[in-house]
Amino acid sequence: MHVLITGAAGMIGRKLTARLVAFGALNNKRIEKLTLIDVGAPPRPEQFPGKVEALASDIAAPGGAQAAIAGRPDVIFHLAGVVSGEAELDFEKGMRVNLDGSRALLEAIRTAGEDYRPRLVFTSSIAVFGAPFPEAIADDFHLTPLTSYGTQKAIVELLLADYTRRGFVDGVGIRLPSIVVRPGRPNKAASGFFSSIIREPLAGEEAVLPVEDSVLHWHASPRSAVGFLIHAAGLDAAALGPRINLTMPGVCCTVAEQIAALRRIAGDKVASRIRRAPDPLVSRIVAGWPRRFDPARALRLGFSVEASFDEIIRAHIEDELGGKITA
Amino acid sequence: MHVLITGAAGMIGRKLTARLVAFGALNNKRIEKLTLIDVGAPPRPEQFPGKVEALASDIAAPGGAQAAIAGRPDVIFHLAGVVSGEAELDFEKGMRVNLDGSRALLEAIRTAGEDYRPRLVFTSSIAVFGAPFPEAIADDFHLTPLTSYGTQKAIVELLLADYTRRGFVDGVGIRLPSIVVRPGRPNKAASGFFSSIIREPLAGEEAVLPVEDSVLHWHASPRSAVGFLIHAAGLDAAALGPRINLTMPGVCCTVAEQIAALRRIAGDKVASRIRRAPDPLVSRIVAGWPRRFDPARALRLGFSVEASFDEIIRAHIEDELGGKITA
Repeated sequence: MHVLITGAAGMIGRKLTARLVAFGALNNKRIEKLTLIDVGAPPRPEQFPGKVEALASDIAAPGGAQAAIAGRPDVIFHLAGVVSGEAELDFEKGMRVNLDGSRALLEAIRTAGEDYRPRLVFTSSIAVFGAPFPEAIADDFHLTPLTSYGTQKAIVELLLADYTRRGFVDGVGIRLPSIVVRPGRPNKAASGFFSSIIREPLAGEEAVLPVEDSVLHWHASPRSAVGFLIHAAGLDAAALGPRINLTMPGVCCTVAEQIAALRRIAGDKVASRIRRAPDPLVSRIVAGWPRRFDPARALRLGFSVEASFDEIIRAHIEDELGGKITA
Repeated sequence: MHVLITGAAGMIGRKLTARLVAFGALNNKRIEKLTLIDVGAPPRPEQFPGKVEALASDIAAPGGAQAAIAGRPDVIFHLAGVVSGEAELDFEKGMRVNLDGSRALLEAIRTAGEDYRPRLVFTSSIAVFGAPFPEAIADDFHLTPLTSYGTQKAIVELLLADYTRRGFVDGVGIRLPSIVVRPGRPNKAASGFFSSIIREPLAGEEAVLPVEDSVLHWHASPRSAVGFLIHAAGLDAAALGPRINLTMPGVCCTVAEQIAALRRIAGDKVASRIRRAPDPLVSRIVAGWPRRFDPARALRLGFSVEASFDEIIRAHIEDELGGKITA
C-alpha cells in the first residue's frame, strides 16, 4: 500500500500522517510507502519502517501533479488548498490552488494510463452550501456557495464525480464540518474564532468572539476529520454509488453552547477569558454559512463523529494539551 | 446597445440574431452593434441598420475571449459549446470548449477593468441534474450531472455565480429544456430523436424512435428558447438575487403524448412515419435525464413557455415550414 497525501504539512495532513504511521496499515493493507507533499516540505514521520518521500511541491505548477503521482500511489488524500479567508482575499490564488491544482491532479491521474485508477479522497467543505437554508440541510440540497472557496470546492466535487463516473479515478469527496479545536495559532479562515474561543482560554489566554452567542454551526474535531478520511479511503464504491460527494456528520451547536461546554469542563475562570468584540465582516460571512445538516447518507455509510461539543473539547485536551488545562 | 453572441452560427444563435434584428432593440435600447462569433464565421444578418462584426473565433483559444469582448458589449449571450453527445465522446474537447472557453470569457471580462460589468446570459441545461429524481425537480435540488456535458454546464453555473457575486460580471444562467423541434439535420445530441420524430414525419420522411413511448421529458420550442434569452437579458439583478442560475419552464410530456399531438395536428399518415428501433445506449443515457420540474422561480421572474406540446409543434410548422405539412 502506497499512500500519497497532498497538503501533508497542514494541520489535518500532519494528524493523518501520524495516524497512518501509528496504524501502519490502511484498508487492511500494510503501508509500505508514504509520499507527503506540500508547498513547503512536510516533516518526515519518525518511527515509520516503510519508505517515505517528503517533497516540497506545488501540484498547481507545471509538472507538479505528474510528479506527485509518479510512484502510482494506491490511495491519495487530496488535502492541499488555501483556506476560505485567503481564497476570498486573493481570488486568483484561490482559483489557481483550489481549482487548477485539483484539476491538474485529476488530469495527471487520467493521463497516467488506463490501468491506473487510485482511490482519491478529496476534502471538500460545507462551504459548498450557501444561505438561505432549510432547517436541516439534506443530502439533496443544491450547491449555492457564497464564497470563492466554496465555489472552488463545489467545482472540484463535480469534476471528481465525472472523472469517477468515467472510470479515470475512484473518487470520494467528503464535506468537512468546521474543524474545532484547531491546535496552534489562528489561520486566515473566517471560522477561526470557533477554535480560538476554546483553545486560547484553555491555554490561559484571552480569546476574541466576533459574533453573537446565538450563532449556530456544524463542528467536528480534528480526530474525527482524520477518522472521516480513513473511513472514506476504505469505502466500497458500489455501496457509495454515483453520488460520491458526502456531507460528513457533525455536532450542531450555538456559540453559547460551546461556551457552556467549556465552562462545564474547565470552569468559570477559563470560560471568562472570552472577550466579546463583534466584527460586522465576520458576522456577515458567518451568516451565509450552513448550520445544521441531515447527513443521512454518510451515517448509513458508517461515518461517525463526536456525540457532543463536550467530547470535542475533551479530544482537544487529550490530543493537544496532554490532558492539562491552564486554570 | 452593443450585443455579443457566442455560438452565433448555431441554431439558437441564428434565431436569436434574427429576432434581435427584427426587434432592433434589447432592454428598450436600440441595438447599434452586433458582434457575432463562432468557430466558423456566422452569417451576417441582412436588413440590419447598425454595425455588424461577424467573426470566426474560438473563445477557448489564447486571446480569443479578449478579442470577443474587445468592443465592450453591453449584453453577452454565451451560447457557444459542444453538445452532450460530443462532450461525452470527446472528453478533452468538451472540457476545453464548454469549461475552459466559458472560463476564458469570464476571465476576459474580469480583467477588462473595473468599470466593465456586462450582463452575461449563459445557456446552461437541465443536464446539470442527474437521476434519481423526485417526482418534480424543485429549484433547490442538487446538481448531480451524469454526463460530462452536464458537469461542464454545472461548473460554469458555479463560476458565473461567483463572478457575479464578486461584481466581475452581471450573470444569469438559464437551464434550457430539451429544445424541440430543432430544424435541419440531426446533430450529435443524444436527445436528437425528440425532434426527429416530429420533424421528419412532417417533412414526409421516416424517423427512428430509439426509446420507449413512456419516456417522459421536458421540452420547449426554439422560439421559447430565444424568448428566455431575451427575457434573461432584461432581468432585474435585485429581483433575481444571488441564486442567478434558473431552471426554465417547459412542457412535460411522454413520447406517446408527443406522437398523439403530432397525430392531432398532422394526421395518422404523418404519425405513422415513426419507426420504433430501440437503442439500449440512447435509452440508458435518457434514463438518467430529468423529466419534470417545478420552475417556480423562473415563473415568478416572468419567464414563459408553450402551454402544450401541440403548441410546440405548431411553432415549428409556422417558423420552419411556412405553415405547410407534407401529408
